[in-house]
Order: sequence, then structure tokens, then C-alpha cells
Amino acid sequence: MKKVTIGIDIGGTSTKFGIVDVDGEVLFQSSIPTQTHADFQDFIAELTNEISDELAQNTYELQGVGIGAPNANYYRGTIEHAPNLRWKGILPLSESIKAKFDVPVVVTNDANAAAVGEMVFGSAKGMKDFIVITLGTGLGSGIVSNGELIHGHDGFAGELGHLTIHHGQGRTCGCGRKGCLETYVSATGIKRTVYKLIADHLEDSELRGISFNDLSTKMITEVARRGDIIAQHAFEYTGRILGTKLADTVVHTNPEAIFLFGGLSLAGDLIFDPTIEHLEKNLMPIYKGKIKILPSKLQNQSAPIIGASSLVWDLLSKTKS
Amino acid sequence: MKKVTIGIDIGGTSTKFGIVDVDGEVLFQSSIPTQTHADFQDFIAELTNEISDELAQNTYELQGVGIGAPNANYYRGTIEHAPNLRWKGILPLSESIKAKFDVPVVVTNDANAAAVGEMVFGSAKGMKDFIVITLGTGLGSGIVSNGELIHGHDGFAGELGHLTIHHGQGRTCGCGRKGCLETYVSATGIKRTVYKLIADHLEDSELRGISFNDLSTKMITEVARRGDIIAQHAFEYTGRILGTKLADTVVHTNPEAIFLFGGLSLAGDLIFDPTIEHLEKNLMPIYKGKIKILPSKLQNQSAPIIGASSLVWDLLSKTKS
Repeated sequence: MKKVTIGIDIGGTSTKFGIVDVDGEVLFQSSIPTQTHADFQDFIAELTNEISDELAQNTYELQGVGIGAPNANYYRGTIEHAPNLRWKGILPLSESIKAKFDVPVVVTNDANAAAVGEMVFGSAKGMKDFIVITLGTGLGSGIVSNGELIHGHDGFAGELGHLTIHHGQGRTCGCGRKGCLETYVSATGIKRTVYKLIADHLEDSELRGISFNDLSTKMITEVARRGDIIAQHAFEYTGRILGTKLADTVVHTNPEAIFLFGGLSLAGDLIFDPTIEHLEKNLMPIYKGKIKILPSKLQNQSAPIIGASSLVWDLLSKTKS
Repeated sequence: MKKVTIGIDIGGTSTKFGIVDVDGEVLFQSSIPTQTHADFQDFIAELTNEISDELAQNTYELQGVGIGAPNANYYRGTIEHAPNLRWKGILPLSESIKAKFDVPVVVTNDANAAAVGEMVFGSAKGMKDFIVITLGTGLGSGIVSNGELIHGHDGFAGELGHLTIHHGQGRTCGCGRKGCLETYVSATGIKRTVYKLIADHLEDSELRGISFNDLSTKMITEVARRGDIIAQHAFEYTGRILGTKLADTVVHTNPEAIFLFGGLSLAGDLIFDPTIEHLEKNLMPIYKGKIKILPSKLQNQSAPIIGASSLVWDLLSKTKS
């Protein structure tokens, strides 16, 4: 029987899930809308039924379930007070899944799952000390040291999106504070920067015709490649802030590499060049030239499923040894 | 036979060493000047002879040697290009000690040794996620996550003294950059702050009669307690910078507690109050009220020896389990 794990990625809109083998191959994948059911247990029932049906059609030996979820508590296997989900309070995620499939269940947030995915199946294979930064609507991160994901005392380690650029000033953040890194460095952050640049300067730009709601990272990338100065400056500004701030991150865990994942990272040299330049400029001498800034290898639609499933493969490899 | 370890703390001036039992009791301690010998191996010979003599007089079962040293490389057991030592280049510390005592030898920097000491013998007993900050001439730190010291890829994790307060500006640091945390928060940092305050303000102060070379943390503490406004402001400013910057540290490893160790931490509420106030003010909501700022329990003359010896006790407890 083929040994498999299930990877589940619970997002605000849709929940993706799949069956993944030990090589990271996705044997099956599907998704359901996250917010259809008023009751959390009805959502779990639909999700587990879909998975059960697929498992029943094959001769798989299920090893465990890995889940990436917003506001996930690794220690308790719960989702806690997630602002983007309709179910309020503390949701017994791990317990509910375990009641259906009697296998190990590992729950963490999506950025942590991305970091473990990079270690198990991606470009961080063999690395013991690295960081994955996910650049989506916000900025998430997963920190691996000594070959282990750092969860922290309350399970809230790796919230690099809330490093502070300007203490007590700067852009308003969803967390209630001001000047957080993700208000500058994320898909939303670069849109805010484009608006700021248009507000401050007179340069002609294709982006002057686009509303904030219509603006996207992809669009900013495309016009920057065509020579749009506002868009190019927006990338330069974003990379400068990211690189400068990562110099502070390096003194904490001295990673071998920092991987960038998600929409903004697909802009390639537009974001990598200024990030590397300003990281190097701000590093203390002992680190200079030693910290690799790399694109994630798991940049496809299945990445969240692979990342979630890797939580189980990683657990199994450590329990064995 | 009583099981013991040897703890060695190599400092710029003197090298302290001692024999420590499993309860952290120092059974014997002594020191030799660090810089007498032109040849590193002659220094090692004197050090190991002193220890051998003491071991020979007792029925001890030696379990290992732990060493805290400047510019120590944990992975290679070496001291590398230490600016404060007379021996240049890469020194084979672990190898030289092993040649004399055939037991496990663990080498790391003094702040990392302090962190492990706090975990094995101090107030971090039972904690899995915490940070120790040593406030001496500079600011050192040791970060523990998942119950393990973070060394990082090149062995240079936990250099929090080189977090940057003002990128590209601010006070000149010994590392060659500007605006590093330790130029503000350390025994030297608070002296620089006193000088800055005297330069900028007109308030009367006892410290106006003291030269920079004669000024000490103890003196600043004493006059602050007597109501000296310059000295009080210097503590307030130091704690504000430390607390504000620690909010950035918390988002990395989400520690249960941050311990302050060394001279400046002995000023008690003068440094703890503003540090806690500004940490809380800058923490994102999920961390507020949860991060303890505590004094180290190992605040005595033997602390460096106990910290160094704890490296071995920690190693042994992990190999056993």
C-alpha cells in the first residue's frame, strides 16, 4: 500500500486539500468553499467526507494530516479568533479531524507550513537554518533553526510582518499598530507605495489610470518591466525596506538562506535586486556575502497543499530517527 | 566518584575556571591572566595544568569541559579572529583541551553560555523558549527555542547587540557600522548617553565632575537613586531603546521570558521599568502582557564558570534522553 499524507490549506475563501506521497507528488487535489457552513463541524464534515471518498477509491496507507490555517495554534491544534473566518472563538480543528481519521494531525499557520514544505520538498532540503517569507496580502514567515520550526512559547513565533519600520508612526496596520513591515512589503504594501509615489511625484505612469482596488502586483510588475518609473521606484522602495529590515532578522537566527515565496517574489530581479543590495549594505561584517536570498522552489498552485502535507512527513522523519 | 564538569570563561583580561557538580555547585574555582603567554598552546598548558592538579587531589569523574570564549565557533570548537586576544587567526581551542582531557568539550560565546546556564541552573529552568541578554561592555545574547540554543548556520546567531536603531546613522559601533543597539544599551552605551545628555542640557548633575573613563554603571545608578536628573534620564532613554527594540525580537522567536544579566541589569527598576513600559507599548496585541522581562538568577562572580559548565550538563541530559 502506498503511504500518503493529506495536506489541507484553509484560506479565507477556499479550502484546498490533497493527497501527497513521500516524494511530494500530489496524487489528488480538490477544494471546497471555506465559508458555506454556519457551523464549523458541518464544514469539517464536508471536508472529511470529500477526502474519505477519495481515500476509499485507492489503496492508500494514511500516515497523517497536515493543516495550514489562519490563527492556528500548533500546541493546541486549534484555530483561535481568526478574523477572516466566519466561525468565532476557539475551533477544535485537530480534534475534529482526528475523530474522523485516527492518525497524527499537525496544525500550524500557512507560512510555517510553507517553511516546512521548503525543507522537506523544496530548495531548503538539507538546510538546518533558514527562513521562508511569504509575500501575499500580508507578510508571513516561518523560521527554521537547528532543523526545527520555531513555534515560540505561545505558538506565535515568526511574525516578521510585524517588525516595525517606524515606531509609533508610518502606515496603519491591521494589527492595530503603525509602521509594520507588511504595510510596506506585501502585495498590499506595494500598492500603498504606488499610491504614495503617485501622490508625491509628477512622473507619468500607466498606473495613474488604475484604482487601488484594481491594482495588482502582477500589473505593477508588468509596467515596471515596460519602464514605468513609478512602478520601478515602488519595487526599489519595497526591496530597500525588506533588505534593510532583514539585516535585523539575520542577527537573531543567522540563517543560511532566506526564501521569498508568493506573488511579489515572482517579480524576480525587480524585488530581489534591491532586497539583496540593502541587506548587504546593512549587514554587520561577519554576515556579509553569506546570507542567500532565494526564490522558493514551491511556487505553484499545489504549494499550500504540499506545505501542509510536509508537516506530517517532517514529523514522521523525526519520530523515526 | 562524584561526577563533575569543568567550566572555563576566557575573558580579555583573565580566564576563570572551576569544577562544577550537577547541581551547579562550584566545588573549586580559580583564574589565570589570559594574556601572559605569547603562544596560545602555552596558555592552554598553564590552564590545563592548574585544572589537572586540582582534579588529581579529588576523586572526581570528569564528564566534560564547557568553555565560554570571545569569537567562539561552536561548530568548529575554535576561537576565530578575536580582536581582544593577543593570539591572532583561528585557535584550535576544543582540540587542545581534548588532547589533555579526553572528554566532550563544548565551546561557545559567553552570552550563549549564560543562556544555557540560566536554563540548567537559573530562572529559565523548565523553559523552552527564552532569551538572555548580557549587558556588559557590549550587549550579548543567547536565544533558546524548542529547548535548544540557536547557533545559526555560521554559529553567529543571537548577535542582538547589532540590531540597528538608526540605519546608517547614530552612534559609531566597534563592528564598523552605525546605530547598533549596544552603542546605546550596555555599560558603555549608558555612559555615552550620559555624555550626550550633559552635552545637550543644562541640568545640574554630579556626573558633570566625572570623566568618561572614570564613569561607571554603578556610579550612574547611585546618583540616579539620589535624584540626579541626568542619570535618571540616561536610564529612561536606555530602557526605552531596549524595550522598543525587543518588540522586534519578540516577533522572531516569541519567547516566554527575556532575562537581563550583568552590570546594567543590577540597576533594578531604573532599567527594568522603562524597558517593560516601552516593550509593552510596542508589542503587537497577541503578545501584550505575555512576555516576562526578568533579572538573571546567576548574578554572581561564579556565573561565567557555571554558565560554561552548564554547556556540558545540558549536552549530557540531551544525549541521555
